[in-house]
Amino acid sequence: MATIAILGAGMMGSAMSFPLADRGHDVRLIGTHLDQAIIDEVAHGRAHPGLKVTLPPSLRASPLAALERAAGDAELFLLGVSSAGVRWAAEALAPLLARAPRPVLMVSKGLELRAEPERGDCALTILPDVFAARLSELEPQALRSPSGAPRVAPVAVAGPCIAGELARRVPTSVVFSGRERALAERWRELCSASYYTPRVDADVDGVELCAALKNAYALGVGFGAGLHERAGGEPGSVAMHNHEAAVFGQAVLEMHALVSALGGSPLSAVGLAGSGDLMVTCNGGRTGRFGKLLGYGHSLQRAVELMAGATLECLEILRVMDAYLARPSSSPGRAELPLLAHLIDVALAGAPVDVPFGRFARQ
Amino acid sequence: MATIAILGAGMMGSAMSFPLADRGHDVRLIGTHLDQAIIDEVAHGRAHPGLKVTLPPSLRASPLAALERAAGDAELFLLGVSSAGVRWAAEALAPLLARAPRPVLMVSKGLELRAEPERGDCALTILPDVFAARLSELEPQALRSPSGAPRVAPVAVAGPCIAGELARRVPTSVVFSGRERALAERWRELCSASYYTPRVDADVDGVELCAALKNAYALGVGFGAGLHERAGGEPGSVAMHNHEAAVFGQAVLEMHALVSALGGSPLSAVGLAGSGDLMVTCNGGRTGRFGKLLGYGHSLQRAVELMAGATLECLEILRVMDAYLARPSSSPGRAELPLLAHLIDVALAGAPVDVPFGRFARQ
Repeated sequence: MATIAILGAGMMGSAMSFPLADRGHDVRLIGTHLDQAIIDEVAHGRAHPGLKVTLPPSLRASPLAALERAAGDAELFLLGVSSAGVRWAAEALAPLLARAPRPVLMVSKGLELRAEPERGDCALTILPDVFAARLSELEPQALRSPSGAPRVAPVAVAGPCIAGELARRVPTSVVFSGRERALAERWRELCSASYYTPRVDADVDGVELCAALKNAYALGVGFGAGLHERAGGEPGSVAMHNHEAAVFGQAVLEMHALVSALGGSPLSAVGLAGSGDLMVTCNGGRTGRFGKLLGYGHSLQRAVELMAGATLECLEILRVMDAYLARPSSSPGRAELPLLAHLIDVALAGAPVDVPFGRFARQ
Repeated sequence: MATIAILGAGMMGSAMSFPLADRGHDVRLIGTHLDQAIIDEVAHGRAHPGLKVTLPPSLRASPLAALERAAGDAELFLLGVSSAGVRWAAEALAPLLARAPRPVLMVSKGLELRAEPERGDCALTILPDVFAARLSELEPQALRSPSGAPRVAPVAVAGPCIAGELARRVPTSVVFSGRERALAERWRELCSASYYTPRVDADVDGVELCAALKNAYALGVGFGAGLHERAGGEPGSVAMHNHEAAVFGQAVLEMHALVSALGGSPLSAVGLAGSGDLMVTCNGGRTGRFGKLLGYGHSLQRAVELMAGATLECLEILRVMDAYLARPSSSPGRAELPLLAHLIDVALAGAPVDVPFGRFARQ
């Protein structure tokens, strides 16, 4: 049994408390400054407002103000913040980690474009590296090794896992990956439950690229449902599933090409982190609903309004990929990624949905 | 404009008349002995009983008895028969093809296990090869080259395409593949329509393996919906999508491993023929519904009864793969294909659904 502090009481951070509590760990849930309403509910034994279920009774929920008291003696940290909160989380945890470096597991998914002035270029950076780099900037003495490398190497979670289903103990299999394999193995041991089966994979770059890219591609898979509704169709076994599936197949091919080109293992795009996570994002996620609105023909602005403030990770990823593909040296470029290029045009520039099936070619 | 005879008036054979007629070809639809009721309807201008739409008005429908008159002067043949009908179709067309070999396009999907006595082993054989070999047996003088190779090399269709949607002109992209690339290119040119975009791919073994295997794997993706219903759940965004997607990701990985081992290009499993066709089969096909019944907990016998006589391609493929994996030399074997092994146990031996997520490992 271990003492594990989860920072971030959103859907996924909170849902991770189920396998951890079921394994008998002492789980502390600490809300960020955005989570006060959630912590109020959970601390009084009421349902988590997003998940609509009561969290495990053994869990202790605390506000951010109590971070030191709630998490100071934790043996491990789990980061449940969104991609936008990763730097903030590094700042919040830096003093605690400087006092005693501890294993970190991250459920945040995203990509950043980092300038590399020495190369006169920029590079896509996965969030575990963003977190580790920020920690080592903040606490160079404690959290940077003599060679300059960050001391804390977070383990990342990828693969098909909707938080609402994890909190209902729906079986799944996910991927744990990090630059230190032993840490990924340790987290796998700590989190494994009958309904939660992590697999350890050394390809942290590949699985994290897929975890981010799948949000962009799920948008395109969602177009079919909107086109069908616009054409007056009812949901059913005959709809625009052909359209959805042709986009899906091309999406997996393009993720495969991107992961290969960016130094990951292309197998990551094939399995749970790629095709598996894309599948679940299409069926259960916000991004698919947003794609449906665009496929229906709503303007970009109207579609964003109709999503009523939901976080749209797909827009964030598409902005990063747009900037990345705009580099003259980009390979693969827009020509080799016709689906991604179309998604960028639709979701960032307001172009009408018209998937360029004729430009799909084998990668 | 070409004269094209479609043999087999089932769903997919008939649906292919849409892009062909829209391109202005003279399309003749010839029913098999099983299609008499369909031909009766179609020939009188009524809706196709399976597709529930009226076929293109320029199409001429004929019974099998009129094969010679309807198809004798056709420049190309399209085979719309089921996998069980491929040998029969070779026998029906052999006299016509012997008189003048013509390009053949096949929509049949399946696999056969063929004994190879000289090796003391057996091999998986794709249907275009079954058809070509049977033709060359029947008409060795006309349809076998001096080297012994079959003269007719059919082009096969793979990728995401539900017949009911093709007949409603829902956009999709598919894969045309054959041992003679020029023939695949010719068929691509003949069939391309605004809503039907074939891509030519040289990997006929890989794409045809995927076309067959996806039916087996779609069964397993369907389990989640049945497990959810059994647990009292309603359809919705929180269901057992995690379960479905973890099975999906493993399915694509196992198809990737099988295609690689069997001499195809693993990229075929990644793109339209693999992940794309699996996706559409899960969303719109019979196999997913059958998997749902098994996931719900119905016995194998009861689930087959509830499918009310629908053709269950998945059982046929699972029987072939069971026999193939039973060979001592099989590589990958059951241990490397834990999902396929479970599907065989459930669908052929009546084992309860209990997906072995813990045995999923990176291929």
